[in-house]
Amino acid sequence: MSKVLVTGGAGFIGSHLVDHLIEQRGDEVVVLDDLSGGFRDNVNPRAEFVEGSIVDHKLVDRLFADHAFSTVYHLAAYAAEGLSHFIKRFNHTNNLIGSINLINAAVNTSVNCFVFTSSIAVYGAGQVPLTEDTLPQPEDSYGIAKYAVEQELKVSQEMFGLDYVIFRPHNVYGPRQNLGDRYRNVVGIFMNRLMQKEALQVFGDGEQMRAFTCIDDVIPAMASAPEVPAARNQVFNVGADQPHTVKDLAQAVMHAMDKQGTIEHVEARNEVKLAWSDHSRLKEAFGPQPQTPLSQGLSTMAAWAKTHGIRSSQDFEHIEIKKNLPPSWRKATKD
Amino acid sequence: MSKVLVTGGAGFIGSHLVDHLIEQRGDEVVVLDDLSGGFRDNVNPRAEFVEGSIVDHKLVDRLFADHAFSTVYHLAAYAAEGLSHFIKRFNHTNNLIGSINLINAAVNTSVNCFVFTSSIAVYGAGQVPLTEDTLPQPEDSYGIAKYAVEQELKVSQEMFGLDYVIFRPHNVYGPRQNLGDRYRNVVGIFMNRLMQKEALQVFGDGEQMRAFTCIDDVIPAMASAPEVPAARNQVFNVGADQPHTVKDLAQAVMHAMDKQGTIEHVEARNEVKLAWSDHSRLKEAFGPQPQTPLSQGLSTMAAWAKTHGIRSSQDFEHIEIKKNLPPSWRKATKD
Repeated sequence: MSKVLVTGGAGFIGSHLVDHLIEQRGDEVVVLDDLSGGFRDNVNPRAEFVEGSIVDHKLVDRLFADHAFSTVYHLAAYAAEGLSHFIKRFNHTNNLIGSINLINAAVNTSVNCFVFTSSIAVYGAGQVPLTEDTLPQPEDSYGIAKYAVEQELKVSQEMFGLDYVIFRPHNVYGPRQNLGDRYRNVVGIFMNRLMQKEALQVFGDGEQMRAFTCIDDVIPAMASAPEVPAARNQVFNVGADQPHTVKDLAQAVMHAMDKQGTIEHVEARNEVKLAWSDHSRLKEAFGPQPQTPLSQGLSTMAAWAKTHGIRSSQDFEHIEIKKNLPPSWRKATKD
Repeated sequence: MSKVLVTGGAGFIGSHLVDHLIEQRGDEVVVLDDLSGGFRDNVNPRAEFVEGSIVDHKLVDRLFADHAFSTVYHLAAYAAEGLSHFIKRFNHTNNLIGSINLINAAVNTSVNCFVFTSSIAVYGAGQVPLTEDTLPQPEDSYGIAKYAVEQELKVSQEMFGLDYVIFRPHNVYGPRQNLGDRYRNVVGIFMNRLMQKEALQVFGDGEQMRAFTCIDDVIPAMASAPEVPAARNQVFNVGADQPHTVKDLAQAVMHAMDKQGTIEHVEARNEVKLAWSDHSRLKEAFGPQPQTPLSQGLSTMAAWAKTHGIRSSQDFEHIEIKKNLPPSWRKATKD
């Protein structure tokens, strides 16, 4: 039985993946996570946990040399699209340089398959539904870094034979989402604010549309990717087919939480208006995929959120550009 | 009179640009260069020279705060396309993170125009001649980093109003090229080897084609870019129209140097076979551009090289991946 590495395995998506790999597939899993967005408690007790950052290339090299991983699932990232404009250096250091360290180590230790969690953010404002044939034109630093990693995997495959599978999930929600993160994951933000009896802040008119995706619907494909021959060196959208407006989402979250709240419209930010994707390519390679209805997924998450309780929001402390920072974020960040 | 910053102003292209800005345009120029590829002697004595790296964000921030630059000409880079596969972290740290530091500082101090020297390397293997309408698909880490910076400039313009002009030059040669750099700039490598009576090494059959560009033909457009309204927030190919094979270049260099040498074919490396570009867009915005014939440009450079003399080759010491490193490079790098 060979070992697999999951970076970001203490985070939201990563910890669910680790559970699946251990419980459904019997993998021996090492988790690397710096706990910047994840929690020690999320990590499956049968996984080996290493606290550290993918930016620390000496640690990464040592880890790969010690374990000779067959598969790397790389999920560690600071995933705040909107905030990434204002933290460009932090974004590229964590999301690109960190990924480069893993690619270097994977090439040097002949990893069999590198599974990378990219993002729908690479597309920018394309024709919806977005398909993998569209050449990405990202519109924020987060998407730029994710796309650069995708390109690095492609050239590393050609140059060094490192096989990869890239997933571009979108708007994933579910239990273990970091409710205290005020910059990302609108479902978690809404639930956390509802529990605090705070208004749900919607940027602009709330007509921006996303396909909010239940965590249960992305894990199986990601976990099985290394064993799907047709998936090798391919890119796949993964997630819910059905888009919803953010305004409708706010109503659906109130319903799931069984709490009436108010909606506060705040100044629109510079973001992609319509973003959801086509999943034909995924179905072709992986077969039919689960599509949990939004109401059902939100109910499950709401039950967890109520048990989990309110999380105080952490302010991001290293804003690099303060110009045009949305006022609702400005208040929270330290000068 | 406002101050302009030239990063990489002690390097080959940068130092020629600095001369032009000072002597033809009367600009007050600050040069930032870490002398990793450039030389103190190249810097025009009327420029203010700061020795330091664009990766040092504290230095960058201080410099921008002190001088309130109106224009930034960003040329600093480690520009080895072929080697970049093997030094991914070094490449992205210098060429992307360094550029991000400059973009942050330019936004924060409201720079009027950010002129960026990208590269034809962003295109990858497209249909020649390459046009700016083609969406880039870079095939090496150097091209990936350059393209990420281009994308960052685009989103920074949209988000923060930072105006930019991007140039994609290709295969520029001329006096002050670093003859001791064994990884890049084939014209300089050939001249340096000829002077040492060493064979001219050609990767593969030498039928790969490039449009070798005289330094005099790229400087005027770059220098004037901030004052050309039609150039704002645009991308321009710049360089010679006429492509030549590397094999023919070897003969032309021998002729210019008036030295007969031998050609040694070494194992082909993973590189783009055909790469030259269309310059219609440049001519439309900037008017007619100089096109120095190859023989004339090489003669000028040969005269300089003979005076300048042989330069010993420096080995790059921080190879991150040794797998598939071309044997002719492997010998030179330390293990």
